[in-house]
This record gives sequence, structure tokens and C-alpha cells, in this order.
Amino acid sequence: MLPVMQSSEKVQAIPEALSVYINNVVYAMKHRGDRVITLSLGEAFFDVPDFGFTGEMFRRGCHYSESRGIPELRKLICGYYSENYGVPVNPNNEIIISAGSKPLIYMAFQAVLNPGDEVLILEPAWLSYPEEVKLADGVPVFIPYDCPVKNFADYFTPKTRMLVLSNPNNPAGKVYTSDEMRELYVMCREKGICILADEAYSDFVIDGSFASLGKIVPDKDGIIIVNSLSKNLGISGWRIGYAISSPEVIFSILKLNQHLITCAPTLLQLYIAEHFGEIVSSTLLQAQEVVRKRAEVEQYIAASGLDVLPGSATFYIFVDIGNWKYSSLDLALYLLAKYRIAVVPGSAYGESTGHFIRIGVGAEPMKDIQSAIDIISRVTAANEFDDALVARELQAVGMNRFEEAGR
Amino acid sequence: MLPVMQSSEKVQAIPEALSVYINNVVYAMKHRGDRVITLSLGEAFFDVPDFGFTGEMFRRGCHYSESRGIPELRKLICGYYSENYGVPVNPNNEIIISAGSKPLIYMAFQAVLNPGDEVLILEPAWLSYPEEVKLADGVPVFIPYDCPVKNFADYFTPKTRMLVLSNPNNPAGKVYTSDEMRELYVMCREKGICILADEAYSDFVIDGSFASLGKIVPDKDGIIIVNSLSKNLGISGWRIGYAISSPEVIFSILKLNQHLITCAPTLLQLYIAEHFGEIVSSTLLQAQEVVRKRAEVEQYIAASGLDVLPGSATFYIFVDIGNWKYSSLDLALYLLAKYRIAVVPGSAYGESTGHFIRIGVGAEPMKDIQSAIDIISRVTAANEFDDALVARELQAVGMNRFEEAGR
Repeated sequence: MLPVMQSSEKVQAIPEALSVYINNVVYAMKHRGDRVITLSLGEAFFDVPDFGFTGEMFRRGCHYSESRGIPELRKLICGYYSENYGVPVNPNNEIIISAGSKPLIYMAFQAVLNPGDEVLILEPAWLSYPEEVKLADGVPVFIPYDCPVKNFADYFTPKTRMLVLSNPNNPAGKVYTSDEMRELYVMCREKGICILADEAYSDFVIDGSFASLGKIVPDKDGIIIVNSLSKNLGISGWRIGYAISSPEVIFSILKLNQHLITCAPTLLQLYIAEHFGEIVSSTLLQAQEVVRKRAEVEQYIAASGLDVLPGSATFYIFVDIGNWKYSSLDLALYLLAKYRIAVVPGSAYGESTGHFIRIGVGAEPMKDIQSAIDIISRVTAANEFDDALVARELQAVGMNRFEEAGR
Repeated sequence: MLPVMQSSEKVQAIPEALSVYINNVVYAMKHRGDRVITLSLGEAFFDVPDFGFTGEMFRRGCHYSESRGIPELRKLICGYYSENYGVPVNPNNEIIISAGSKPLIYMAFQAVLNPGDEVLILEPAWLSYPEEVKLADGVPVFIPYDCPVKNFADYFTPKTRMLVLSNPNNPAGKVYTSDEMRELYVMCREKGICILADEAYSDFVIDGSFASLGKIVPDKDGIIIVNSLSKNLGISGWRIGYAISSPEVIFSILKLNQHLITCAPTLLQLYIAEHFGEIVSSTLLQAQEVVRKRAEVEQYIAASGLDVLPGSATFYIFVDIGNWKYSSLDLALYLLAKYRIAVVPGSAYGESTGHFIRIGVGAEPMKDIQSAIDIISRVTAANEFDDALVARELQAVGMNRFEEAGR
């Protein structure tokens, strides 16, 4: 008999996600009762106002909603982009709400790319960008982290069709200036390259430096903006994201959404629509609080003698591991094995970023973050490493060693 | 300058969904204040028990859950498949919960298909199957509605890789017997063809005739079962579905889910897990009630002189339009324009089913369904049609005429 269940070539080519692997080791250690200083999570922990769900919400929430998202919430989000970021958005045809920004970014790729089209992704790059590009039959092409915007054109080829701009950048925290974006847009527009701006961390900025790409390109010609309530409102588990673009592109994404997703959870859309103002005013303060904490941590890191990638936003810091001569994965595993400190290796975010680690400041108190930094600084400076200890500790929690492959 | 925003060839090839078009006409008429007898909806209207959300649920529900789904809910669903359908399922590695069965079916295609692989789909076919196959680079191949199971092999080619079995069939309501499934499985297994069983309407059966494909193939070698809480529990707006298969296939789907979806809404998973028993015992009775209503409506249709496709399950009936000599779309539009009755044209479900309409019995009271059937019977028998009236009425609600193209 023929084998039935061999997986497709595409799926075979998807590597295990390194950040997921690290967090699985963390779960296994915590499950055993260990205390782990967890700087590896992609979440801040907000106190989200809980008003309860009315009976009417519950009843209406049991049913499908329009595939574009409920009109009330579309209107509120468009109002938010207009008032806070100066981007006019028509709630009827320039926005679609779906079950998170992850599927929306994928559908944006599917909406634009033909097979073999190249997508430029600046490192450090969020793990799912390249995988989503490949699943949409595109080819991810990486730009090293130290390439200035004016040199992005060096990576253009006749096959280049899109460029992903994570702004503020996850995980470096860099915020692009209006001038940089204008320069980039002109460069891309004349070559027929569409810019996908992932603005998921737009409210994790305290110095007013964030500008939406939509402010630079109000007619949205050649741009797609993706954002989410997951990070800004601290409700990643609610699965609500949105895309903003020209009516033609939104219609393309809508057609895909009708067949792949249907709609974001109706009940949760209704709750947000009912309490939008109250939720935003509560969570916005908490987001700013986290960014202030980030700035403090960044100072502490600098004082400890480590370098970081330039950035002022998000709740991540991308730390250069200086003198350390093994891989960033070795460092992450050693920190876990010996000191129960969890960070994400920079190699998860690209080839050029293998000499960094990502630290998230959202989940732990300042005191623990500082002692973790003290240890990281000492360990990297001294090249303190014990491969056998790593192997023993992984085995003790039933985990295999992660196999790093070329991306 | 080069055009930036031309959509991809794949998206250009997605036709507007005919069922969505019909329901948009219905919305436009209702918005104007018209009363429309709506037999076109894909939902039954259940009274779902509302226990409220606890503060603890709300807090935990704000965060991502495991990409496989929360362990409590996986365990409960596996228990349900085991107790009610006699299918043993390991909650640790043979099930994945995601944001609806729609993305899960798509990920199942992505997990198995290589470019150009053929997927057999029996008509009447749910609209999204062929579009999802194409988006996964596969080729949908349709089997006409009147082909008996033993002749499915006539459609096998060396490129055939999957077969979709909608059981109970949406929209005909046919339930496959264990013997038919066993025969089909043997045929497929020896050719290396994987069967995807969509069991979304598994509880809309009153005569005990439903058998899950998992009962026939307990080791799940060469099968993928997809099911959903949307129809069985009447919570389509909650976006929770699941797939059951061998650990290898579930792992493939998990890898895709991590990059495309992340997880189903955590808060809603927690609610279902907490109240699973109470919800199921309430909604199961309501599902059976709808199926009894379906049987009554079917008798009424037979008495009115119209034929239906054989079937006993779901809340749909697929009605032969007998003497009618125009298209099923013409009939649907005329019924809307002249009598404010909404049905879905059979052409939405395949080429072989262009002489049918789909009637859903979940949304309207029996009296209105019966008067609609009286009218449909009279209109089809007399070939009563007025193309100019259709055009006028569509124009009056601002809708274009739907362009039917080859699928």
C-alpha cells in the first residue's frame, strides 16, 4: 500500500519555532515546580477592565458576524487610527477585522503574491513572516539588521513584490521616522513593491515618535497596514486583529477571509465595541508604563556593559551578547539550565542576528529582571558555559536538544 | 510607475460566493424594512446556556493558549468522540483545536497536498472546499451528486491525494453508512488517498445512523476528521473547531496553526471547558428538535409534488426544482424579488446540482416555511418568471446581478 500520511513538502520545510521550543522548556521546568525568570514571553500582562457580558451580547455573539467585522467596531478602530495617528480610514471598505493579525498578514501575502515573488524582510524578523510568505508560494529575502533604510534598494530584484516593515520593530523596538518611511515608500512605489506595515506595537511608544505608514500614504496606494488588539489592548487570547488598505486590497483579503476564517469571534467583537473607550484608556496607560520599564531596563543593561540594538518602543530589548563565543541558542539553553532564566536566542530572528538575545520586560518584576541581567552580563563576559549541564537538564525535563537549521 | 496593487492570480480566481451574495440581497431588503422568509442561512438558532464569565476566566482568557487548544477542552472533546461515537482519541497528540473548522480544513489541505495534487469533492459541495484546495495549490475534482460510493474510483487518477467526505452531507443531509465508508476507505487507502471527513453536523441526526469515520479507522491511518462547535452547539460566532487524526498529521497541522492562527479564543475555550456537559445536554436536544422539523418539512415538500435529494440529517434540504426551466439562480432571485423568499441556488454547490435549491429550516417558523414551499411548488410548476422584475428589485436595493462563471 502507498503511504498516505506523508506531509506536504511545504509543511516538512517549516522548522520548529525556536521561541516556542524555548517556552516549552520553560513550561516543563515550571511544571516540575522550578521558578523561572521568564523574559521569553511575547506578552505584557495588563489588567483589562471586566464589565461582564450582557445577555443580549451573549445571544448575538453566538452567531457569525459579517466577514469584514461588526460595523460598530470597524467604526471605532477607524476613529482611533484617525484621531491618534492622523490616518483617515473608511470603515465601510478600507478595513477588515479578522481572527488576529497573524491570519491577516498571511492573507495579505496571498492577496498580493504570485508564485516566486520575493518579499523583503528586515532582520530581526518576527518568526512567522518567512513561514507565511513560503506558505503563500512567495520567497522570503532577508535584509541584515544593520542595513540603513537608504540601502534597502540593494536588495530589490525584478521579482521583489512586497516589503515587510515591522514598526515599531518586534523585537528591536526601533521606531521608523516619517522621513525614513517616505524615502522607503518612494523607492518601493516606483518599483511596484507593496509595503506591509505591521504596526502591532503602535501604542508601546512614549516619546510620540510613532507614525503610521498611513499618515505618509493617506490614499493607501501600495501599502497594507496590519494591527491588532492583542498587544495594544493586552488581549492576545481574544484573537482580534485588523488590516487597513485601499478598498481593492481589502476586498481581496475579504474574499480570502470568507473562505479561510469567516470572522473574528462575534461575542468578543461586541464586548470591545461596547467598551472601547474605557478599555483603551485603561490599557494605554499600562502600555506606556511597560515602555517606561523598558527604558529603565535598557539603562540597566547599558550600565552592565552590554550593548543593545537601538530602539525605544515595544516591551522587548534586543541585547548584543558581546564577548560570548558560542551560539545565542547555547546561551539561552545555558541560562535556563544553570540559572533558570528564559530568553529567546537572536538566531530565531534571522541569520544576521545570531549574536543577540531577546529580552521581554512585560512578565517579570524589575528586581528579577535586574538580577537576570547581572547574570547574563557575567556569563557572557566570562564565556561561562557547560554543555554537559545543558544536556542533563534538558533530559531531566524530557526535552530534546533543538536542531538549528538554515532558515 | 508600476501598478502595485493588482491582486494575485489566486485571489483573482476566487469567485464571489453565491450564498454570500444571496444573503447580501436579503440584508439589503431587510435593511429597507422588508420581511423576508429566510431559508438561506447556514445557522440554526439555539438557546445556548449563559452562565456568565468568572473573573478568573476573564483574566486567563486575555492570554494566548497553547496552539493545540487548552488541555481541559481537548480532554472533553476526546471524551465526547469516544463516548458518543465510539472513537478513541488521545487528547495529547491526536487532536488540535483552532479558530473554527474552516481554517482547520485549509490547514489539513496544506499539510497533505503538494502542488497539482487532486482532491475529490462530492457534489453538492460546500463552497469553501474547492477554494481552499486551490489556495493550497491543489486541484479540486468534483464527483456528481448521483455517483454511488462504489463508483468513486472512476474519478481516481495518479494525482489523486485526498477525498473530502461531508458526513452528514451539507447540504443534502445524507448520512453515509458504515459499509459505504469501509468500502471507500479500502479503495482510498490502497491508492494512498487520504480521506478528510467533515463531520460538522454530526449531532443533527435523530435515527442513530451517524457513524464517525474514526469508528471505521480507529488508528486514524489515512484519515483526518474535522468537526466544530459552531453547528452542533449553535455557537458559530465563537470560532472553535477541531481536527482529529494520527499524531503525525496533527503535528503537521499544529506547525501550520502556530504560524497562521496561534489559537482559538482562550476565553471562549475556557467557558466551554467549564460548562461542557450542561451546554451539550441543552443544545443536543435543540439539534434533534431541528432535525424533527426537517423531517416534517421534507414530508410537506413531498406532498407539494417536489423531489428532494435523499437525506435525513442537518437542517438543510436540497430540493429538485422539477419543471423549472431557467437556472437555480434565476429561481432564487425571482423568489426574492417577487415573494421575499430567500433560498440558495444549487449551482452554488457544483455543476451537477444546478437543478436544485437549498432550503434551511433552522431560522423560520414552520408556518412560514410551509407557505414558502407552497409558493416554490407553484412557481416551479408553472415556470412563473419575470426577469425584468428581478432586475428592478435588485436595482432598488443597490445590488448588481450576480455573474455566474464556471467554478
